[in-house]
Amino acid sequence: MSQVRVHNFSISLDGFGTGDGLTFEAPFGHAGERLHEWMFATRFWRSMVGESGGTSGVDHSFAERHGHGIGAEIMGRGKFGPAKRGPWGDDPWQGWWGDDPPFHKPVFVLTHHPREPLRLSDTTFTFVTDGIESALAQAREAAGDRDVFLGGGAAMINEYLSAGLVDELELHVIPILLGGGARLFEGVGPDVKLEQVRAVEAPGVTHLKYRVTK
Amino acid sequence: MSQVRVHNFSISLDGFGTGDGLTFEAPFGHAGERLHEWMFATRFWRSMVGESGGTSGVDHSFAERHGHGIGAEIMGRGKFGPAKRGPWGDDPWQGWWGDDPPFHKPVFVLTHHPREPLRLSDTTFTFVTDGIESALAQAREAAGDRDVFLGGGAAMINEYLSAGLVDELELHVIPILLGGGARLFEGVGPDVKLEQVRAVEAPGVTHLKYRVTK
Repeated sequence: MSQVRVHNFSISLDGFGTGDGLTFEAPFGHAGERLHEWMFATRFWRSMVGESGGTSGVDHSFAERHGHGIGAEIMGRGKFGPAKRGPWGDDPWQGWWGDDPPFHKPVFVLTHHPREPLRLSDTTFTFVTDGIESALAQAREAAGDRDVFLGGGAAMINEYLSAGLVDELELHVIPILLGGGARLFEGVGPDVKLEQVRAVEAPGVTHLKYRVTK
Repeated sequence: MSQVRVHNFSISLDGFGTGDGLTFEAPFGHAGERLHEWMFATRFWRSMVGESGGTSGVDHSFAERHGHGIGAEIMGRGKFGPAKRGPWGDDPWQGWWGDDPPFHKPVFVLTHHPREPLRLSDTTFTFVTDGIESALAQAREAAGDRDVFLGGGAAMINEYLSAGLVDELELHVIPILLGGGARLFEGVGPDVKLEQVRAVEAPGVTHLKYRVTK
């Protein structure tokens, strides 16, 4: 059966996946790009955004798992767009990524407000209003025998963890303290059992992989 | 100048240094001994508590740094005794460790309530009521050119971090989620700058070392 995977999810050493004060100009809030610099520098990332070059070491190896065996992504509304709540309106936000989003697969966006699907190049965004289990069922259907990627933010990962629906976590610990923001594992607790699979040191980041045991 | 070091400080993957509900019978609360099993299994620990055997690999190498170059320890009252607050009383708690505590060095206990020093074998516990800076000054004086060890719990480490008084952090991340307890880095925040020194994988634990940059 296909797996439900979190990866390329960076956290500060004090456990935050984004900072406070998310806005259009500062999509990661006061964290800035510090949590993601390790990934932006990789050959994987640069290729995904249409640039050449980039690093090809351990960071690249972890980052490029984004591309292997993933058949669909689920993301929170906060990842799809700036921190806006409420109905989508008549001229809704089209995502951060322009006319050719880097997903190249079906994406399911969790939201409380209905919206027609949005197709941009070979990425279709489907807006799911009836909860995380429905989104997962739709993503599994779309992914076939490939895996479902949980794209974040922290709140949606916490919901899926609490519901016992995650198989694998790849986290990337950055040596900064944010002191506030969206905290991974908030409200999750001891019912979720983990097995440490791997811990790999790289300059300025520690890559951690865990399997959720059932 | 001597360094102020945190090490052998285990945290759950969600950042807690102990669980909730600390009592005499459950000094680590609902975390049980799960955070410290890696250390209890080492040759270093077994030798410290007068037993033979134990592991001698990576875990031992990290754990035994407790013994090198440390001239004094500062600990919170919550580490010295069960979660009791208020005046010490007439027949005060003598610590968890019996007549021959494993410290073999001066120990300074942070408390709000005055108490005469307690000498047990070659360990003297001095009770400091005038704050963390005073405790550090006394510990530095006692340590000479050796380092000062911050023994925990999380709250006192957070206080020293916030005050800019820590040089080095060795943390040990255990693949459990506690969901509650004493959280390392609570209230510390972005003013404290860290440099990642090392990350080492061992079975069931990831050893992380950071230097606090000034």
